[in-house]
Amino acid sequence: MRMGVDYYPEHWDRSMWEEDAKLMQETGVSLIRVAEFAWSRLEPTEGNYDFTWLDDAIDTFATHGIHVVIGTPTCTPPNWLVNAYPDVLPQDEKLHPRYPGIRGHRCYNSPSMRHYSALIVERLALHYANNPAVIGWQTDNEFSLNECNCEHCNSRFRMWLQDKYDSIESINAAWGTVVWSGEYSDWSQITTPLGGTNHKNPSYVLDYKRFETDSVVEFQQLQLNILRKHCPNHFVTHNIWSYPMSLDYYKLCENLDFVSLDYYPSTSPEKAESSGYSGALTLDLARGIKRQNFWIMETISGPPGCWMPMWRTPHPGFIRAFAWQSIARGADTLVHFRWRSAPSGAEQFWHGLIDHSNVPGRRFEEYRGLCDEVRKLAPLLEGTEVQGEVAILHSHDQYNAFQIQHQVEGMDYFDNLKTIHRAFTKLGIMTDVLNETDDLSGYKLIVAPSLFLLDPEIASRLETCVKNGATLVLMPRTGVKNQNNVCWTQPLPGPLSNAAGVTVAEYDPIGRDVHNIRWQNKAYSCSQWCDILSPKGAEAVAWYEDDFFAGETAATVHKFGEGKVYYLGTVPEEAFYLDFLRDVADNSGLHFIPDLPEGIQISTRVKGSTRYLFLMNLTRKQQTMLLDGTFRSLLGSREIGPTLTMAPYAVEIVELPQKNV
Amino acid sequence: MRMGVDYYPEHWDRSMWEEDAKLMQETGVSLIRVAEFAWSRLEPTEGNYDFTWLDDAIDTFATHGIHVVIGTPTCTPPNWLVNAYPDVLPQDEKLHPRYPGIRGHRCYNSPSMRHYSALIVERLALHYANNPAVIGWQTDNEFSLNECNCEHCNSRFRMWLQDKYDSIESINAAWGTVVWSGEYSDWSQITTPLGGTNHKNPSYVLDYKRFETDSVVEFQQLQLNILRKHCPNHFVTHNIWSYPMSLDYYKLCENLDFVSLDYYPSTSPEKAESSGYSGALTLDLARGIKRQNFWIMETISGPPGCWMPMWRTPHPGFIRAFAWQSIARGADTLVHFRWRSAPSGAEQFWHGLIDHSNVPGRRFEEYRGLCDEVRKLAPLLEGTEVQGEVAILHSHDQYNAFQIQHQVEGMDYFDNLKTIHRAFTKLGIMTDVLNETDDLSGYKLIVAPSLFLLDPEIASRLETCVKNGATLVLMPRTGVKNQNNVCWTQPLPGPLSNAAGVTVAEYDPIGRDVHNIRWQNKAYSCSQWCDILSPKGAEAVAWYEDDFFAGETAATVHKFGEGKVYYLGTVPEEAFYLDFLRDVADNSGLHFIPDLPEGIQISTRVKGSTRYLFLMNLTRKQQTMLLDGTFRSLLGSREIGPTLTMAPYAVEIVELPQKNV
Amino acid sequence: MRMGVDYYPEHWDRSMWEEDAKLMQETGVSLIRVAEFAWSRLEPTEGNYDFTWLDDAIDTFATHGIHVVIGTPTCTPPNWLVNAYPDVLPQDEKLHPRYPGIRGHRCYNSPSMRHYSALIVERLALHYANNPAVIGWQTDNEFSLNECNCEHCNSRFRMWLQDKYDSIESINAAWGTVVWSGEYSDWSQITTPLGGTNHKNPSYVLDYKRFETDSVVEFQQLQLNILRKHCPNHFVTHNIWSYPMSLDYYKLCENLDFVSLDYYPSTSPEKAESSGYSGALTLDLARGIKRQNFWIMETISGPPGCWMPMWRTPHPGFIRAFAWQSIARGADTLVHFRWRSAPSGAEQFWHGLIDHSNVPGRRFEEYRGLCDEVRKLAPLLEGTEVQGEVAILHSHDQYNAFQIQHQVEGMDYFDNLKTIHRAFTKLGIMTDVLNETDDLSGYKLIVAPSLFLLDPEIASRLETCVKNGATLVLMPRTGVKNQNNVCWTQPLPGPLSNAAGVTVAEYDPIGRDVHNIRWQNKAYSCSQWCDILSPKGAEAVAWYEDDFFAGETAATVHKFGEGKVYYLGTVPEEAFYLDFLRDVADNSGLHFIPDLPEGIQISTRVKGSTRYLFLMNLTRKQQTMLLDGTFRSLLGSREIGPTLTMAPYAVEIVELPQKNV
Repeated sequence: MRMGVDYYPEHWDRSMWEEDAKLMQETGVSLIRVAEFAWSRLEPTEGNYDFTWLDDAIDTFATHGIHVVIGTPTCTPPNWLVNAYPDVLPQDEKLHPRYPGIRGHRCYNSPSMRHYSALIVERLALHYANNPAVIGWQTDNEFSLNECNCEHCNSRFRMWLQDKYDSIESINAAWGTVVWSGEYSDWSQITTPLGGTNHKNPSYVLDYKRFETDSVVEFQQLQLNILRKHCPNHFVTHNIWSYPMSLDYYKLCENLDFVSLDYYPSTSPEKAESSGYSGALTLDLARGIKRQNFWIMETISGPPGCWMPMWRTPHPGFIRAFAWQSIARGADTLVHFRWRSAPSGAEQFWHGLIDHSNVPGRRFEEYRGLCDEVRKLAPLLEGTEVQGEVAILHSHDQYNAFQIQHQVEGMDYFDNLKTIHRAFTKLGIMTDVLNETDDLSGYKLIVAPSLFLLDPEIASRLETCVKNGATLVLMPRTGVKNQNNVCWTQPLPGPLSNAAGVTVAEYDPIGRDVHNIRWQNKAYSCSQWCDILSPKGAEAVAWYEDDFFAGETAATVHKFGEGKVYYLGTVPEEAFYLDFLRDVADNSGLHFIPDLPEGIQISTRVKGSTRYLFLMNLTRKQQTMLLDGTFRSLLGSREIGPTLTMAPYAVEIVELPQKNV
Repeated sequence: MRMGVDYYPEHWDRSMWEEDAKLMQETGVSLIRVAEFAWSRLEPTEGNYDFTWLDDAIDTFATHGIHVVIGTPTCTPPNWLVNAYPDVLPQDEKLHPRYPGIRGHRCYNSPSMRHYSALIVERLALHYANNPAVIGWQTDNEFSLNECNCEHCNSRFRMWLQDKYDSIESINAAWGTVVWSGEYSDWSQITTPLGGTNHKNPSYVLDYKRFETDSVVEFQQLQLNILRKHCPNHFVTHNIWSYPMSLDYYKLCENLDFVSLDYYPSTSPEKAESSGYSGALTLDLARGIKRQNFWIMETISGPPGCWMPMWRTPHPGFIRAFAWQSIARGADTLVHFRWRSAPSGAEQFWHGLIDHSNVPGRRFEEYRGLCDEVRKLAPLLEGTEVQGEVAILHSHDQYNAFQIQHQVEGMDYFDNLKTIHRAFTKLGIMTDVLNETDDLSGYKLIVAPSLFLLDPEIASRLETCVKNGATLVLMPRTGVKNQNNVCWTQPLPGPLSNAAGVTVAEYDPIGRDVHNIRWQNKAYSCSQWCDILSPKGAEAVAWYEDDFFAGETAATVHKFGEGKVYYLGTVPEEAFYLDFLRDVADNSGLHFIPDLPEGIQISTRVKGSTRYLFLMNLTRKQQTMLLDGTFRSLLGSREIGPTLTMAPYAVEIVELPQKNV
Repeated sequence: MRMGVDYYPEHWDRSMWEEDAKLMQETGVSLIRVAEFAWSRLEPTEGNYDFTWLDDAIDTFATHGIHVVIGTPTCTPPNWLVNAYPDVLPQDEKLHPRYPGIRGHRCYNSPSMRHYSALIVERLALHYANNPAVIGWQTDNEFSLNECNCEHCNSRFRMWLQDKYDSIESINAAWGTVVWSGEYSDWSQITTPLGGTNHKNPSYVLDYKRFETDSVVEFQQLQLNILRKHCPNHFVTHNIWSYPMSLDYYKLCENLDFVSLDYYPSTSPEKAESSGYSGALTLDLARGIKRQNFWIMETISGPPGCWMPMWRTPHPGFIRAFAWQSIARGADTLVHFRWRSAPSGAEQFWHGLIDHSNVPGRRFEEYRGLCDEVRKLAPLLEGTEVQGEVAILHSHDQYNAFQIQHQVEGMDYFDNLKTIHRAFTKLGIMTDVLNETDDLSGYKLIVAPSLFLLDPEIASRLETCVKNGATLVLMPRTGVKNQNNVCWTQPLPGPLSNAAGVTVAEYDPIGRDVHNIRWQNKAYSCSQWCDILSPKGAEAVAWYEDDFFAGETAATVHKFGEGKVYYLGTVPEEAFYLDFLRDVADNSGLHFIPDLPEGIQISTRVKGSTRYLFLMNLTRKQQTMLLDGTFRSLLGSREIGPTLTMAPYAVEIVELPQKNV
């Protein structure tokens, strides 16, 4: 467990390196990430590689005990490359090149891009394989889909389809192209989604997004092969951007050693109540990608800005509290972005720990304190892990399918997932947020928000979990379609109707017209969608209170094997989730915290029977909570509890004697 | 009078046809529309026609007594056509092709499009001319302008202009191109409206829109000629989309046998108060195109969606009530869209009568009841017609001219027309909404919303009506321009000043700054526009109450021949129209209903002296009204009135003994 | 001092010229501007010049004592030119031509555009050099940047950069292109800002904007050289559009004889409170460009419209009051746009003094009265000038830099400048608004809103002013960057820290989160930005009241030499400026008016010891103010004061006996 910073030696006069390294060492920084945007310095013109400056920089920092992660610089193809090989540039839906400006101006399928990327990665790998200061690699930077329409993307897309579908007839069948005469009679008729209309066959668009993920994965794999070959002792990771995301992170990270996350919680006072919860979900998602601890490769050090107007500066305590939140949810190393703000370029106002003035200030002092704390606790936390008690399912495919077809005003796949996750976090229940295709055995409670595309295989795997005793919670828009994005022609929730013991007789997409349901004699509001349910063996547990379907069933529970399946036919307000999930958790024998104040988060890291409890007040308000006894604070060494008053952004870490707070 | 559905045999496994046909027959469906998007099935590759599947489908349905309307499939050029003949694709203002995606990706002036359209229409015509189950044709689907800029559109536009104007000098004169050096010195300098600026010479843009209508009309006429030649016993219609519309429906429908309308009233509860009134206008417009009864070729069967987030599901009674509203205002046949929701393609969530599950539900049961009712009343209603007592003038040219030059914040030609029409509907007065060039003789009351472009010929025709006793109501922005979209250089209302006995001394485009007028000692709000009037023979009847023109004349009435002309100098609130039009109607000897509850609509269909009165509660609220006696309900056979309580979406139909409610 | 109108002989039948000329003469119009959009009439086809119609028109008006300003028609390249030489058209960031539509469809760097512009300007110059009715020229019309990306712009941009930077290495250094591998290795890699991303290196974008200004200046200079050569006795001006503006007006107007302004104050009642103040700033800016009196070349005559929905018609008195406001702030000649509204073309509803009907109405009568007044006062006002007591600094570079990098929600460079200027205007203090590079000696008070880019030379010039006794007021975001748009690596306010005696310890971009400061025991709200200040010799004068920086210093004052420097660390509400600037003005010995009613503006024109005071009520409300005695009104000849009640839009002009109101 170590502290690092993102550092750009090429942005600074050499004379500053030594001074920076010294200050880092004093502060407790033992790691820098470098070079991920430095292609034009590493290869100033075609084939002329110059790594001497980077050697010098690495040496300078190594002298101060600082290790190095090198980023491959392929996110920023230099001007000479773009100029000489225009196929590097992606083309938009009207076939306009996306000219260089900032970064990311590269088509993943461009032959030139692949060729020159492989060359420079190989040179770097060979050069740094045995540099003792270098410990690992980051591929590229914050991959995302680029949705290019160049000839190479077109021909690869056709190859990808030929691979998947064999014949034109199968594609026509799988996509249902007969609608509106969209049938293909020859492969050459299939193109990437060119402009002219926003509405296209949803099956086609979803497959195109899958192809785009595979293009990125393939582009990365080229680098990975080189790095694995030449640097067998180095780790390789990638710094993913946040959620929601069209690119499939599960596929992207499959062959990496661990996941790194770029984590920028919002500093906005209006979002102060919610950003901690969104952040918790992001961290759980990152941990869920490979179901193991991860790194933070970039995180907030000052007010971000440039792409957008600047954010508020982080409140005192904010940088530290969110750093601890990251660790609490599975981060093993934190790399802050960035050491010092850039004086030039398009990201001038994305502030680092130190301002342009190069005078360390309040934020730097907070960071220095954080480094001290991490250094102190690292030996204890080394090897600990986070274990969720509930599984929440996530899927980029589902996200993309909902993006392609916005079901109803106000319905957002990811926002709905957020609400559920937030409820668990407010109940103090640790969640694992997992790919819907993951093995879920061992979980007593599984929540599956809108399995819009529902493969019979996944349905049957969930059925098995339930049969073996798990409780499964389903939501509206489950079982609507198969993996081809084509509707099932059977009553909803399709392949899960049997397990749920219920079918949807009819639905009303109520959107923002708020309605009410009654559950356990209490009314809750709901919106977005109302499935009117016909129990087929399930028991009704909630009923609508309005409209022509007042009195109809809104939710059911069905005993199935050793377990049970809840089907929620609507999207209720958070208050419902708090009551309902508490009830469900309680019935599943899960521990929850009844009175956790809003904005205080807890989580635990475990190694064997040793458990560390993290308590974080991620708000601008002082808050008080009751602990289950008194504990010695591992940060401050004082006794805390049973009444614990937490200042804004306060953090406490204690060792738990047993599984109670 | 019959009930039909839109059916897509190509979307379903053949095994389902027979079952569907049987259920249709049981339900009372005697008509299906087919094939309007099936080009890729009818001609899978160039020149390889395959009609066997359609033959089989038609035979299956014919066996169950179901007739067929065939749509020509030219709205969806298949991929092989687009791929081999790229001139099929329209080009936007930056000359980008509008690539296929869903439908409508075809330039009306493309030689290839015309050629291959003619070929397939001819094949279909020859093949189905003598199939006894086939009764008629729909051309293409929901024509609209496509505003293409391809070379063919450019050269045809020039030819169209040469035809209209003879010389470059005449164009320069007619369009006033001298402003800003827009003069042409050669035909080659004239192009369709290419990109770069949204603001162009308004005379030019209006002519371009007329050209575009003519392009569509010509494209349709090619098909019409073929169908007339080979299928002399079949009717030909086209399913128009809704209003407002840039394409001139009067020209489009001139050579068709009757008009068909696609009618999708909004299911939104917030629009529940207004959508019935908008719908009434749409239906009156459709009836006015050819001044005869019409068909509904598509109408709502479930929640629409896909292009946009899904709408609310139709409330119980909604589907039936709006079906009866259509009949009440002149529909002779109703074709519901669609039998069953499509499992694939971009329109998956535009719901049919039956859901993807293929389990008929609540909506289907409502539809089944509707079919029963229609079957029962059809013999009575056969041959009845709707006769409006008031003429409201409409024009696509006016609509386009206002679109080209937005006069003032809040002023919308079509919305203003809506308000007037709604007032009449609330007063229980039946209106005919007619092309401004129609013969208006026989109407006691004519309302002309904003005759912005005012041809002296139309002015003089209106004058004649007034001289012969009609009452004419004029509105602001009348007589501003000639047909070339060039301003008259005479006081407003230009060619109608004499008949109106008034000129506009000055105007203030007040936009959303609400003002007040006083009429018959009562104050009403007004907005958008204030003409300050100078009566020249007319009598002032309303006055402004605010601003520097407080006390000035806001409205006048002028006796002219046997009739009179009202000039309203501003756009008043609906309350004014209700009072004013009631007064005017009363003075014109028209019958109105003083206390018709909001949302209840009435209309009558007449044959000789037989009159059927339709009463429809098009709201979600129960409402009560007073009838002029008691009547026997033709739907339920019970006595109704004099107090009639109508449930939400209730419908009553009675035969009237005489011309009273 | 004379009155003129914009007149378009080519829009009207020749038969109307004589009548128009007569009415002008009667009304007091002695000047027309003509021909600035008439290229297609002056050169109907390439090389065929026809000036006879213009000769005739000029003769007709000359006969009625009317002088003529000719506009060079280069803003509207005719169709023949565009068609034959497509390089005339500018290309957008995706390289699409900006096709003709209205006007301005020309690239300033196009060789054809330059060639044919020079030809027609030379012909016109030669032809009219000795026409006694012609007194001067307007170049083109309302220049602005066009941001073209054609090959000519690209190659000239490269040449411009070579000129400025000599070597690729210098550019890379100056722009800090090393960030994100943006380094150039060859000149050919540099292009104008092509599409694909909105975010680019800010140094590069700012230089591109400077290049674009230079392109316009060069384009104008070609014309200027010709006009100077052939018409040595004529003045040359240009009619600038309003503010804010990316094009650098200071550079544009450097070689002109005087500045002309197109002035269209808003007629909106909601903006009635503010538009007079915005207008005052615009007029002060126009006067500041060359630090001398100027012309109004276009001003409001009726409701503008066409580009946008029409505005409200000018309230009675509005046209006259804003005309006098223009004169009061330095206009020496007023040319109203336009004599009569155009019957055709895209500007049909931008109303002139006379409507399409050609019946002079209320607005024309008001204009006629204005002409009488101006004729009466012209002899007195001839040679008078406006002298501001306070200098406010302005810069197109700063404006552009803020546009390139939006600092924070709600922060707008020009809006902040407006607020400061408005406060001075409300205090009755006349301001000069000057280019930040101007000589400021003589001003007791200098206000510099956000010197974001701060050259040490400008900093040192300001320091000198302060040392010599001036008071300087600085604002947040001062001294952030150098002229290359690269951040200073020293504490803020950078090069002015020393003079201000303060540094910024930290900042919080609070955006729209309103905070409070305390100054002289009173609380004021502030927003946008909070610099937390560390006085280094300065004295704290205001403190924050909220957030984690409550109690920290928000503003300081520093004695420096004979003067002092205020540093405001935040953007306060107007109320603060009113109190603070009054205090500062008072301490600087400036005269202010304590109780000037909101919306009443005063200003003075001076010649030697003669001073004329203008009082204008630029609101829709009657207002009362106290004068410092009684005065004889120069407009009405009656006594006014000491209590003066001003009707809406009333104007008074008096001669001051001495420097008091």
